[in-house]
Amino acid sequence: MPGSWKDIAAKKRAELLDSIPEQWRIPADILPPESQLDVTTFPEKSGWFTAEELEYTNSSATVLLKRLRSGKYSSEQVTKAFCKRAAAAHQLTNCLSETLFDLALRTARTLDEHLATTGQPFGPLHGLPISIKDNFQVRGTDATLGFSSLVGKTSPYNSTLVDLLLAAGAVLYVKTNVPTAMMIAETVNNVYGRTVNPRNRKLTSGGSSGGESALIAFGGSCLGVGSDIGGSLRIPAACTGLWTLRPSAGRFPTAKTRSGLAGQEAVMSVNGPLAADLDSITAYSQRVVELQPWLDDPKCLPIPWRKVDVPKKLKIGVLWDDDVVVPTPPIRRALQVAVKKLKKAGHEIVEWKSEGMHERAGRLIARMFVADGGKSVSALLAPTREPFRPEMRSYEDAQEQGVYNMWQIHLERSDLQMKYLDRWNAAGLDAILCPTAPYAACEHEKFRYVGYTCVYNCLDYSAVSFPTGLRVDRQVDSFSEEDQARETRNEFDKTTKDEYNVEAIHGQPINLQLVARRLEEEKVLAMVEHVANTLKA
Amino acid sequence: MPGSWKDIAAKKRAELLDSIPEQWRIPADILPPESQLDVTTFPEKSGWFTAEELEYTNSSATVLLKRLRSGKYSSEQVTKAFCKRAAAAHQLTNCLSETLFDLALRTARTLDEHLATTGQPFGPLHGLPISIKDNFQVRGTDATLGFSSLVGKTSPYNSTLVDLLLAAGAVLYVKTNVPTAMMIAETVNNVYGRTVNPRNRKLTSGGSSGGESALIAFGGSCLGVGSDIGGSLRIPAACTGLWTLRPSAGRFPTAKTRSGLAGQEAVMSVNGPLAADLDSITAYSQRVVELQPWLDDPKCLPIPWRKVDVPKKLKIGVLWDDDVVVPTPPIRRALQVAVKKLKKAGHEIVEWKSEGMHERAGRLIARMFVADGGKSVSALLAPTREPFRPEMRSYEDAQEQGVYNMWQIHLERSDLQMKYLDRWNAAGLDAILCPTAPYAACEHEKFRYVGYTCVYNCLDYSAVSFPTGLRVDRQVDSFSEEDQARETRNEFDKTTKDEYNVEAIHGQPINLQLVARRLEEEKVLAMVEHVANTLKA
Repeated sequence: MPGSWKDIAAKKRAELLDSIPEQWRIPADILPPESQLDVTTFPEKSGWFTAEELEYTNSSATVLLKRLRSGKYSSEQVTKAFCKRAAAAHQLTNCLSETLFDLALRTARTLDEHLATTGQPFGPLHGLPISIKDNFQVRGTDATLGFSSLVGKTSPYNSTLVDLLLAAGAVLYVKTNVPTAMMIAETVNNVYGRTVNPRNRKLTSGGSSGGESALIAFGGSCLGVGSDIGGSLRIPAACTGLWTLRPSAGRFPTAKTRSGLAGQEAVMSVNGPLAADLDSITAYSQRVVELQPWLDDPKCLPIPWRKVDVPKKLKIGVLWDDDVVVPTPPIRRALQVAVKKLKKAGHEIVEWKSEGMHERAGRLIARMFVADGGKSVSALLAPTREPFRPEMRSYEDAQEQGVYNMWQIHLERSDLQMKYLDRWNAAGLDAILCPTAPYAACEHEKFRYVGYTCVYNCLDYSAVSFPTGLRVDRQVDSFSEEDQARETRNEFDKTTKDEYNVEAIHGQPINLQLVARRLEEEKVLAMVEHVANTLKA
Repeated sequence: MPGSWKDIAAKKRAELLDSIPEQWRIPADILPPESQLDVTTFPEKSGWFTAEELEYTNSSATVLLKRLRSGKYSSEQVTKAFCKRAAAAHQLTNCLSETLFDLALRTARTLDEHLATTGQPFGPLHGLPISIKDNFQVRGTDATLGFSSLVGKTSPYNSTLVDLLLAAGAVLYVKTNVPTAMMIAETVNNVYGRTVNPRNRKLTSGGSSGGESALIAFGGSCLGVGSDIGGSLRIPAACTGLWTLRPSAGRFPTAKTRSGLAGQEAVMSVNGPLAADLDSITAYSQRVVELQPWLDDPKCLPIPWRKVDVPKKLKIGVLWDDDVVVPTPPIRRALQVAVKKLKKAGHEIVEWKSEGMHERAGRLIARMFVADGGKSVSALLAPTREPFRPEMRSYEDAQEQGVYNMWQIHLERSDLQMKYLDRWNAAGLDAILCPTAPYAACEHEKFRYVGYTCVYNCLDYSAVSFPTGLRVDRQVDSFSEEDQARETRNEFDKTTKDEYNVEAIHGQPINLQLVARRLEEEKVLAMVEHVANTLKA
């Protein structure tokens, strides 16, 4: 008989902490007090990191790659520095699910030896430490997705992406925390508990790739891989001011990853990179596609990395409001600033209305996720009698829909895809600029609405969430009298309005979302570079 | 209250015959008697076709295209000839579901005028008559899929492929018959009845694209478009000695087509060309991809038509037997001849075993099709109280599986896809050579086993069915004593053995199947050219 889920969870958390070697445990005398909300200052200010450790871990993935491949940096030294900083990140934000420190250092040493012996880097990602979300499998380690029943059910094999990254010379050193089944927009589960935002620990780092976003925002990773089925890359990026690409399905390999809704295919889970800079996102994307993942993953598409000529004058549709939830003031302000600057830079900006399609997409996706009557999640909770978390209420309450009804949902989704594409073609758009979420940042338990992201999962469009360079400012982002007075549209809109707390999120970065057609990853990355540069100018 | 399904069907059949103008009705005195099995000789021997009509309709699509684009042939004249020959085909094989003669001739005249006026062809398919399967929608015409309830439910819009073909200058002049819901391997339904094989009317033309195969084998079309979810292009091609390409999903547009299992996505229906020659198949495939269908169909992939360098020495795995149904003697002989000649030509031939995977695929697909408990088909039969045909017994008896179980089926399919790909990679194959079916040709009601084709729907591989140039020969293709004596493995194997009748199929062409990886349409077409040339040598 298995122990109680609480015992299993407590033991797993203790083992995780124990897996951090003594020298990477933050000494009690310099440990920031719980009352310290922003812990991103810790690496620089604590004096606990050497200058070299800071140099390595403050570098972007592209800079590191160059120096690792040339032999200027040793992978072992760089990896060690990231292990230490990731360990610190975990102690301050609870962002990890597994540590792979020994494996990572062995790998790094082997790579260093390879370079020393052959004079050649091992592969295109030679020596680069990359953090990965918990759902990626690494042989012999756990991939619990936050379920106590999966603790100790170690992966019998590597995910295809893991094999490809290792073959390309990457060093995998940590796995990062997720919400239960990866189906909550914050990062909290019954095994590991809650991951917090290192920029303000009273705020969420988003979900479901919120272990990654917390880790990267703290500087404990220069490049992480998360996944996205309704916003799970873009929401964490937005909550922490990072960059991410949600690719269309089939661009990056998903084979042999774990899922909380295994076999659900009405909307496909995809994975992609998170980083503090765009170059690292683009470099990763290109490298992974150049590894020809379609040779190993039956769901991957044989589309090589393509050169794109982005028009100098972009035609961008701006979605100010999806007609479900009115974005909060910082998001509206960021859109206004962006539109003004983009127009000034000569781009053509047109209004893009939801025409009810975003609401339809949100409703469809919500039905898809629970169409099995929540049985997939229940089956993962049952062995240890772990209860449903309150955020998973819709799974607990769900009814089995039956295959016939599921086929009707597919038809509705295909119809929506067709109509949205028709509108896109009629408008002649290059991209849509829109919120990633109605919130710039969010207190724990208050991230409730994923409609601004999940519509593009439903459509399978390529999308980037990117930091605008703007930050929430209590001086300008308070509700106007008009805001205060307006009647809300629905429960999502009401909670978004009622729970808006500019004081709580003051100073947080503001992200927006840029969306291109399906399978236009190269174009959306090239466009966002233009857009971001225009915003900075 | 709608009339009885029998009345509706009788009326529809009469209307279809009435839509054939007097001058294209075969005079009673030259009408081949029912006892005449091979009617493919009719066009040449009846004297009813002019030399020009025969010249046009005996030309391949690529030859016609050249002459139409240059103005050597007028589209109106070519179209008229195909209308007449298609009308004859219908009167002799019952292969059509709709005639679009007026529309076709108007279109053809417009195209001729365009060429005369501008000196330029209208598009890459300028003036070419193309026949299409009933499931493609043409505004204002029926697309019944063989259901009486859909008679008179005229299409409100064109299928995306129809729009693209018309925009490219094609002339659509007939729609072709299908089995009920397109889910039978022969072509028979309660509305139009049965389509027969023009090479031998006691034999099936296959299904579900068996209206197309009968039409093309008779010479009533130089190029037709069918669809395939379990073999529905390859089986009709094999039954009539034609060429076809089953592309992987996403290569050719499927948007706005009708389906008997609408919304079913565990295995995707695809469409592709059928023709009497390979060049026409390749030309069509390239032209359609060059129309960039991904701009208009959300399910299409932005993969341009690619140049391929096929290795001079191919590594081909030969599947002699899928371990479910032993192929009949003509198929085994064709494989032996092919292997011998391919080896002699320097190709590397290895044995490819099913290892139980083909049986697994067959079982999975069978479960997918009826996972809705047959409700989709029932819902199309119910309005007119049309009964299930006996071939559709598995739909009538099916139980709703529920979404949770469906997700498990998806997982089993993905696992199979992964394992098959791993084996393919380990073997380093370029292609698999295998039967299209255990039968070379088949008497009516005896096409029972689709395992040799549906495995590649389950895997979504690109596959060609091609004529080997060999024909069934009663002298060499009779059962040996060993064949007679062998114990059968299962019901499919038993009926295949028990019903084998070499006398009935003597003289029929023998097709084989060549299979490449997913989304390798260019490569499989290039390889089959080598293979077919080697066989001819």
